[in-house]
Amino acid sequence: MIIVMKPGATKAQFNHVIEKVKEYGFQAHPIVGTERTVIGCIGDERGKSQLQALEVAAGVESVMPILKPFKLASREMKKERSVVKVGKHSVGGSQFVVMAGPCSVETREQILRSAEIVKAAGAQILRGGAFKPRTSPYSFQGLEEEGLKLLAEAREKSGLPFVTEVITPTDVPLVATYADMLQIGARNMQNYALLKEVGRVKKPVLLKRGMSSTMKELLMSAEYIMSQGNYDVVLCERGIRTFEDYTRNTCDLSAVPALKEMSHLPVIVDPSHGTGVRSLIPPISKAAVAVGADGLIIEVHPNPEAAYSDGAQSLMPKQFEKLMEDVRKYLPLEDRHL
Amino acid sequence: MIIVMKPGATKAQFNHVIEKVKEYGFQAHPIVGTERTVIGCIGDERGKSQLQALEVAAGVESVMPILKPFKLASREMKKERSVVKVGKHSVGGSQFVVMAGPCSVETREQILRSAEIVKAAGAQILRGGAFKPRTSPYSFQGLEEEGLKLLAEAREKSGLPFVTEVITPTDVPLVATYADMLQIGARNMQNYALLKEVGRVKKPVLLKRGMSSTMKELLMSAEYIMSQGNYDVVLCERGIRTFEDYTRNTCDLSAVPALKEMSHLPVIVDPSHGTGVRSLIPPISKAAVAVGADGLIIEVHPNPEAAYSDGAQSLMPKQFEKLMEDVRKYLPLEDRHL
Amino acid sequence: MIIVMKPGATKAQFNHVIEKVKEYGFQAHPIVGTERTVIGCIGDERGKSQLQALEVAAGVESVMPILKPFKLASREMKKERSVVKVGKHSVGGSQFVVMAGPCSVETREQILRSAEIVKAAGAQILRGGAFKPRTSPYSFQGLEEEGLKLLAEAREKSGLPFVTEVITPTDVPLVATYADMLQIGARNMQNYALLKEVGRVKKPVLLKRGMSSTMKELLMSAEYIMSQGNYDVVLCERGIRTFEDYTRNTCDLSAVPALKEMSHLPVIVDPSHGTGVRSLIPPISKAAVAVGADGLIIEVHPNPEAAYSDGAQSLMPKQFEKLMEDVRKYLPLEDRHL
Amino acid sequence: MIIVMKPGATKAQFNHVIEKVKEYGFQAHPIVGTERTVIGCIGDERGKSQLQALEVAAGVESVMPILKPFKLASREMKKERSVVKVGKHSVGGSQFVVMAGPCSVETREQILRSAEIVKAAGAQILRGGAFKPRTSPYSFQGLEEEGLKLLAEAREKSGLPFVTEVITPTDVPLVATYADMLQIGARNMQNYALLKEVGRVKKPVLLKRGMSSTMKELLMSAEYIMSQGNYDVVLCERGIRTFEDYTRNTCDLSAVPALKEMSHLPVIVDPSHGTGVRSLIPPISKAAVAVGADGLIIEVHPNPEAAYSDGAQSLMPKQFEKLMEDVRKYLPLEDRHL
Repeated sequence: MIIVMKPGATKAQFNHVIEKVKEYGFQAHPIVGTERTVIGCIGDERGKSQLQALEVAAGVESVMPILKPFKLASREMKKERSVVKVGKHSVGGSQFVVMAGPCSVETREQILRSAEIVKAAGAQILRGGAFKPRTSPYSFQGLEEEGLKLLAEAREKSGLPFVTEVITPTDVPLVATYADMLQIGARNMQNYALLKEVGRVKKPVLLKRGMSSTMKELLMSAEYIMSQGNYDVVLCERGIRTFEDYTRNTCDLSAVPALKEMSHLPVIVDPSHGTGVRSLIPPISKAAVAVGADGLIIEVHPNPEAAYSDGAQSLMPKQFEKLMEDVRKYLPLEDRHL
Repeated sequence: MIIVMKPGATKAQFNHVIEKVKEYGFQAHPIVGTERTVIGCIGDERGKSQLQALEVAAGVESVMPILKPFKLASREMKKERSVVKVGKHSVGGSQFVVMAGPCSVETREQILRSAEIVKAAGAQILRGGAFKPRTSPYSFQGLEEEGLKLLAEAREKSGLPFVTEVITPTDVPLVATYADMLQIGARNMQNYALLKEVGRVKKPVLLKRGMSSTMKELLMSAEYIMSQGNYDVVLCERGIRTFEDYTRNTCDLSAVPALKEMSHLPVIVDPSHGTGVRSLIPPISKAAVAVGADGLIIEVHPNPEAAYSDGAQSLMPKQFEKLMEDVRKYLPLEDRHL
Repeated sequence: MIIVMKPGATKAQFNHVIEKVKEYGFQAHPIVGTERTVIGCIGDERGKSQLQALEVAAGVESVMPILKPFKLASREMKKERSVVKVGKHSVGGSQFVVMAGPCSVETREQILRSAEIVKAAGAQILRGGAFKPRTSPYSFQGLEEEGLKLLAEAREKSGLPFVTEVITPTDVPLVATYADMLQIGARNMQNYALLKEVGRVKKPVLLKRGMSSTMKELLMSAEYIMSQGNYDVVLCERGIRTFEDYTRNTCDLSAVPALKEMSHLPVIVDPSHGTGVRSLIPPISKAAVAVGADGLIIEVHPNPEAAYSDGAQSLMPKQFEKLMEDVRKYLPLEDRHL
Repeated sequence: MIIVMKPGATKAQFNHVIEKVKEYGFQAHPIVGTERTVIGCIGDERGKSQLQALEVAAGVESVMPILKPFKLASREMKKERSVVKVGKHSVGGSQFVVMAGPCSVETREQILRSAEIVKAAGAQILRGGAFKPRTSPYSFQGLEEEGLKLLAEAREKSGLPFVTEVITPTDVPLVATYADMLQIGARNMQNYALLKEVGRVKKPVLLKRGMSSTMKELLMSAEYIMSQGNYDVVLCERGIRTFEDYTRNTCDLSAVPALKEMSHLPVIVDPSHGTGVRSLIPPISKAAVAVGADGLIIEVHPNPEAAYSDGAQSLMPKQFEKLMEDVRKYLPLEDRHL
């Protein structure tokens, strides 16, 4: 950590900071410059919020951290890339894993039909929401356990493992009983009680980036899960909020290689929420392969016009089929396969 | 709701949309323009996400809602302003309510001393976190129930009611047993399971705006709480995330009068998180009075340098005293009093 | 345009709006709903800011435009895609055009060497700044006309046409004398005097998206150029400003297919400014091919460490060579060639 | 400047960086930490973009500047606050200066009437656009020199000096002949050719913050003007672009005290563009006084419904009168007067 003193900082102020730094267990290395004095602090910064609090000490201009605040999720900790198993599939290796299905589980027929459709097109994992975090309390909130049962039936019939969202800590054991992978949605990326809870089960976790979260914050949330003993975390870029209004969100594809520079965890892309515009999903899916994503998660509905939620961004079966054909052509260029 | 057809939409596509609109229980009024045909749909739009899904029907360019999606929180529902009682204080009337105290409850001495300090300066409600939503799993996570007990002791000694954050649904009954007001933090603004739970208890709720939430989304979250029967919701502007990096967040003061145009609920301002910069807290506090806020929530610590969290934005006792003096001068201009 | 009346609007207010609408040359079609009355206005909305001003008329809640405000740049005006010739190259057809070179022209040797390097790797157009819009008045401001002469010499020796930025209207004739394509930088996207001036010369224009501009605003700026008679406009996505700080900007790749839905103009991507991080340029370049971009513009410097500007995001010759190899593998999948 | 080396940086990489640092005229002070080595560089950083370019040297993780990049505009350069004279008025002292008038000069009658209205209400400076930077080429572009003449006539009749926008360098001499203060609009904040040109005339400049500019960038733009010899710069906060859509922009009131911490220049607020919503202008105006602004600039139109531009955010005469009454009540609290 580097502490920058104000131009007119007094000797007493300087000495006070040096003392504090030592008190917190760091070594202090002052550098006297032409316009500023800076103090290099040597020691492990993680969890030392007290050092940051020195920002308010008299004479201090700013405190700049040097180390990244996450450890278990970092590449410095683990050089080789992590591979997360979901059913018989591996996310993060040479396999490119496509998760697809409707936004919500609506009816038995709808989810069974969805599983058939996405399997036929080549997807390896079924997605579908049983617990829905809806912005309106008056909107359909999901079939809950009934939805989980239908997903399990779809898995049995199709052979596809499934990923589904869990929205509150008390539901984690229930959802973990049924699901092959637990999803933490964007709105819950910093729901720490929930992160800790999924960190305690033995199921892989799909962690979505919050709508206005930085990549470092996403990795801090992964760190939460990992700090409880669950290392099977897959990160997901799903678009961030900007002023642009043609799209629902701005899909930050540079996050894929950037997250891989900072972390060993697998990264997939959600072009459905990432753009919110059906016609933009196929090009962004191909681009996700190109930037090195380990997979995709895509909303597909047998009949989007009749969907209870997210109909406007759900692909029709034919469109998903075409998308998978396109993705297949791109995979060999990145030494990937379905 | 208005449906805009694409320039080249066919008669068949047009008819299909008209049929669907009727099927969903709306009346359809087509207007044929020089370059576009639009269809006005008459009926209650709330909860009708299926209508929105028509966006993907062939020939449709866009679907524009006319009504606001919240009802209980809206001014259309209730013209007169709501007043929320916390202890003997009233938020939303002529009283201007200041909530102050440390970010976290750290020790018995610290919280008792904090209560004395903020009371002496004129604050009416004590704040202090017992359950802390920290970005790092390695940071201090709060004293939990022990913290609630210390807050209760501080209340007994000082006579100040207290507000404290609750971060997960299962903790709601426990926190409600001790606290006078439950806080939903910015990161949990869309934690719907938590919103529903606080909607079921008989305690006032302080609902903070999410870091990248629009005002409408904040009101939708208030609607969640109210839809469960708890109408005592106070909204809080606490800064939104922008590209500006001198401040931690950008405090959107226009949100105060804007929220009051849309809703009857009281609105307070959190200049501590809203700016994240200690020196900016006093001017923003005065400005909050000027824009018509019903109160403030401010971080004050007996010794910010030693704070476990948020030290850099906590006011020192003398600074808070001065701030309250300034606020007192402003209140009469808005016909307010402490 | 749709005018939404407030719930309690009076008959007199309604009549006043109807009158005004007719006065501005529109037909008015009122639709009386259960909670609101809306008025559909038929006529050409473009340039009718007076209609928008009705938002402040008593009883009016909002005014929603239906038509896009640009015409010449729109796909509705021209269905087939435009192709812009630069030297013997065509941007917007099956050719994929790569523009590459240093941020600034620094010395004769540097620009001649750069031209050789980028040509050898397969780029078709040389880029290099002679007039530099620098955030600091104390930074290198470019070699100005001397830089243009060096670029012309590099063209002569390498056979590569060149694109260079023009930053003020009075320089347009001078720059147009030398350059094959004029660049309007992100900071000048809404410098309307400059847009009009480049609209009057017979040289193709590379128009970069402003740092916080929507796609519609970018198209409005293209409309400015086109309205003066110059139809040879190439759009460029170069990253928008967000709160993310690992990257310098967030490259919005969905803008490529989205702009192509709205407009017939060619679209290229600038991954150098789009990310600001050297290691992210190659993956974003490949992804640009995948989303359907018509080309790339990339900063390459013979010796980035010694660059006068943007060294940290300039590729080294070997890196650019590798990038071009990768791009070559991707092009056939989109039926493109260099 | 602090250079942070990567964890595994080699001795050779370290030595190379040390050499470069010395070559650029800095002293190097290495600090070897437990996980990282950092190098403190002593010397004047301004204009040294080459040092920043070291970010790409092998083994370097990041380069962090210590000094602010602006000098003339900084408080470190000049402790006492600057006062800028416009006519007989002083911006930046105890006087609170209100600039008001229509968005555009439309007709002789309109501008003369506007001057009367705003003067009667207490404004000291007339505003009005003769050269209009409009997003659409089909919108009214201003009366140009004719508009300047009308403004001069309004000044003669009312005694109010006037501020008007200049949008291109070649117009600066003409506008400076007529106007008492030159305005640089938000879209031109980084139009460096224009900044330099207004830096060369002897007229005060009103510099508006760009729509997505940081405060530091605003100060860098002020530095451009000052570096040419014109020190009479008034900064203006006019709202930044965010995802919030109830308001046109998000008015960042914390920018007023923050800019005053960084700079000695006066700062005023534009609540008209800052919010874009008429009803929000009065509360934000009062709040501007509270945060320490040196003045306001407000759009007022004799008949907003008929305005050629910005009608929806222009105040009606009665509303402006009321606003001025409110502002008058607030001024004494900040030891200000009109």
